[in-house]
Amino acid sequence: MKIEMTPIGTIHTKAAEIPKFWSSSGVEGTLVIDDEYLEGIQDIKTNEQIVVLFYFHKSTPFSPASLTQHPRGDLSRKKTGVFSISSPIRPNHIGMSVVEVTGISENAISVKGLDMIDGTPILDIKPYRF
Amino acid sequence: MKIEMTPIGTIHTKAAEIPKFWSSSGVEGTLVIDDEYLEGIQDIKTNEQIVVLFYFHKSTPFSPASLTQHPRGDLSRKKTGVFSISSPIRPNHIGMSVVEVTGISENAISVKGLDMIDGTPILDIKPYRF
Repeated sequence: MKIEMTPIGTIHTKAAEIPKFWSSSGVEGTLVIDDEYLEGIQDIKTNEQIVVLFYFHKSTPFSPASLTQHPRGDLSRKKTGVFSISSPIRPNHIGMSVVEVTGISENAISVKGLDMIDGTPILDIKPYRF
Repeated sequence: MKIEMTPIGTIHTKAAEIPKFWSSSGVEGTLVIDDEYLEGIQDIKTNEQIVVLFYFHKSTPFSPASLTQHPRGDLSRKKTGVFSISSPIRPNHIGMSVVEVTGISENAISVKGLDMIDGTPILDIKPYRF
């Protein structure tokens, strides 16, 4: 089974350094949503936390050698199964982060807590309810 | 940009009724991982909570009319932007649930808290660290 997906928008940030994990990130940026999906973001509110699913578009293609990896590329740490770490090198290149909405203007959602690089395609946004 | 994904396994459950949201679910089932990805689950442990990303394979195709929807199909509730609800009818049919691991045996991860139907393709498993 092959599944096809299309981005709904793009992540923009001017940050030069991006942290490796969102929970330790204060990086700001913008989720720019494609016009055709604009109506879908009408209930997202400032100060809310949202889940962003995105596509690791610059990631190394996956191969069986990456089924275990050193967490965060730290060679001093034991190789760990890919489904227990957040590495971008995974069978399906889907990333997930929780970010805080700091403002919304038309199709641009300003957020804090990014760990994605500039230009990252957005696949989905979901409410954060854990 | 078109993005292609391939399932890493399949969700199995005998439950006749599936709740609409994982946080209210006690449904048990099994994540059966395809053999080629087996090494990737080696560090998943019993009693751990994990994030499962899956493909809403039975969902209605998305159309602009679904950019706003009644939450959980409840017509008494105000239509809400699709990116603020968990409906399976969304631009990219990715679902996300947090489930509890109750046991692991070779390629079968027993879990509790399912809200996916039997036969749902699994796209990714991530550590739960919120």
